[in-house]
Amino acid sequence: MRIVVLAGGIGGARFLRGLKAAAPEADVTVIGNTGDDIHLFGLKVCPDLDTVMYTLGGGINEEQGWGRADETFHVKEELNAYGVGPDWFGLGDRDFATHIVRTQMLEAGYPLSAVTEALCDRWKPGVRLIPMSDDRVETHVAVTLEDGERRAVHFQEYWVRLRASVPAEAIVPVGAEQSKPAPGVLEAIAGADVILFPPSNPVVSVGTILAVPGIREAIAEAGVPVVGLSPIVGDAPVRGMADKVLAAVGVEATAAAVAEHYGSGLLDGWLVDTVDAGTVERVEAAGIRCRAVPLMMTDLDATAAMAREALALAEEVREA
Amino acid sequence: MRIVVLAGGIGGARFLRGLKAAAPEADVTVIGNTGDDIHLFGLKVCPDLDTVMYTLGGGINEEQGWGRADETFHVKEELNAYGVGPDWFGLGDRDFATHIVRTQMLEAGYPLSAVTEALCDRWKPGVRLIPMSDDRVETHVAVTLEDGERRAVHFQEYWVRLRASVPAEAIVPVGAEQSKPAPGVLEAIAGADVILFPPSNPVVSVGTILAVPGIREAIAEAGVPVVGLSPIVGDAPVRGMADKVLAAVGVEATAAAVAEHYGSGLLDGWLVDTVDAGTVERVEAAGIRCRAVPLMMTDLDATAAMAREALALAEEVREA
Repeated sequence: MRIVVLAGGIGGARFLRGLKAAAPEADVTVIGNTGDDIHLFGLKVCPDLDTVMYTLGGGINEEQGWGRADETFHVKEELNAYGVGPDWFGLGDRDFATHIVRTQMLEAGYPLSAVTEALCDRWKPGVRLIPMSDDRVETHVAVTLEDGERRAVHFQEYWVRLRASVPAEAIVPVGAEQSKPAPGVLEAIAGADVILFPPSNPVVSVGTILAVPGIREAIAEAGVPVVGLSPIVGDAPVRGMADKVLAAVGVEATAAAVAEHYGSGLLDGWLVDTVDAGTVERVEAAGIRCRAVPLMMTDLDATAAMAREALALAEEVREA
Repeated sequence: MRIVVLAGGIGGARFLRGLKAAAPEADVTVIGNTGDDIHLFGLKVCPDLDTVMYTLGGGINEEQGWGRADETFHVKEELNAYGVGPDWFGLGDRDFATHIVRTQMLEAGYPLSAVTEALCDRWKPGVRLIPMSDDRVETHVAVTLEDGERRAVHFQEYWVRLRASVPAEAIVPVGAEQSKPAPGVLEAIAGADVILFPPSNPVVSVGTILAVPGIREAIAEAGVPVVGLSPIVGDAPVRGMADKVLAAVGVEATAAAVAEHYGSGLLDGWLVDTVDAGTVERVEAAGIRCRAVPLMMTDLDATAAMAREALALAEEVREA
């Protein structure tokens, strides 16, 4: 079975670990969000790609969900001692090596997709990880700061430095319109048996991937079940601050509203948590097959069960 | 008193610490060797400049004489885990930050001299540290490897990886002929009261600085005492492998031969170690005023005493 997954960072990576446990024989291609990539200290940092790679490759810091295990922060301490910022982005020493290798390869002329493949040669994540695009796409967030200043800030600045403490007025994936899907992305979608949206952020993770011209269309036209899992449980994000960015695109932070946001033109099936069982009817009324199952990724077993439910719903869609 | 010092790495840096103790009120300009600079992992590494900066700024690993104190090596471990080399060059995590800042500034268009000044803003070495040139000069060493292959290797590869285990057949400061002294170098020399050659390597440290067109001439024409300290004591280098590279330029590894190599056209005074007192006559016969004093930099006091002897010899030269 060929499965394509559109993944953001922590939520997507943890779901993928469950999917691999649930379907160990499946051929999984992950289309990774690069909209939150950032250049720091002259280095190209791809937080979502790395979170997937480290999580599936066994190098992740399990507690925080991002960054490397057994990490130290001496490079960052010293950079800050030189007065070189930012100091709010937690780049560890082991993590730095990934960015150094990536940057060196990019400067040598390799596209990000080839670089990602080379990095994965080491990590062996057990999936094919492809960035959504080799072109630079950078999600910016329009905000009004506390002093009244209106600014567009890099998504990482909004998420990490400001901790989404001010409302996001608009989310703009800068460069998306001019970007092209990376080599292999459209082919993977066209050849998929199932396409999954993990409980990643529907705006700045899955939404950014869908903003790359051609990807949304390819998914809609693939003619295979497209099933998503709600990142919102009981009217709050399971993790992260998805509600903040949903508000910016005028979507309420509920499982049903997110499904409607994707829409029946794209999504065939939707899993909501059992606490949101009351919303199943609303989702189905929108033309999307819906089931209520436990959606808390508390451990690998629970996450694998979620993946099995998603695949079962895909089969239901296929047979319908 | 304005003192100009031509410095290599460890020997030069330690001497400078003694000089600062001996002449705390002096205005010291250090012209640093950049011929052993190397690009590693896409980063510009300037070992000699950093050794001077860290040593005088209090950040040096005192035992090994280079690199940072309290260092870890996680970035390098990870780079090597990615299969990205070299693995023979000991870049620590704290040290990496310096190279990241430097590379970022160079890529932003700042010349190395401005970058060095910016890095020194943090370290406050108490001297003005100027690279010999803003242009790329890279010392290469012609060798015949054990398998008979003839190759030109970067000086760092010869020194660190091969540990000078094969004879150096030629030393070539690639790019030196086309290089220009960095801003401030010729001005510092022209305005100096004394010019000192610390017990640095006469070929690949001081020799490389002198290979930048204009520097040797400026020193010869400055009309002020030029005094050096022998890096060879008792027919062996005090530290490092200066004998290996002296052989490549046809100079015997003795205190007197090094003085003759610099020559009376450049050098006015020369300090040899007391064990080499028998060679004073030979040096003076070459037209260079010579004294035999203890030249082992065993501690700060001993090093400060050496600096005082050098300054005293400079006064002798001036009054002669």
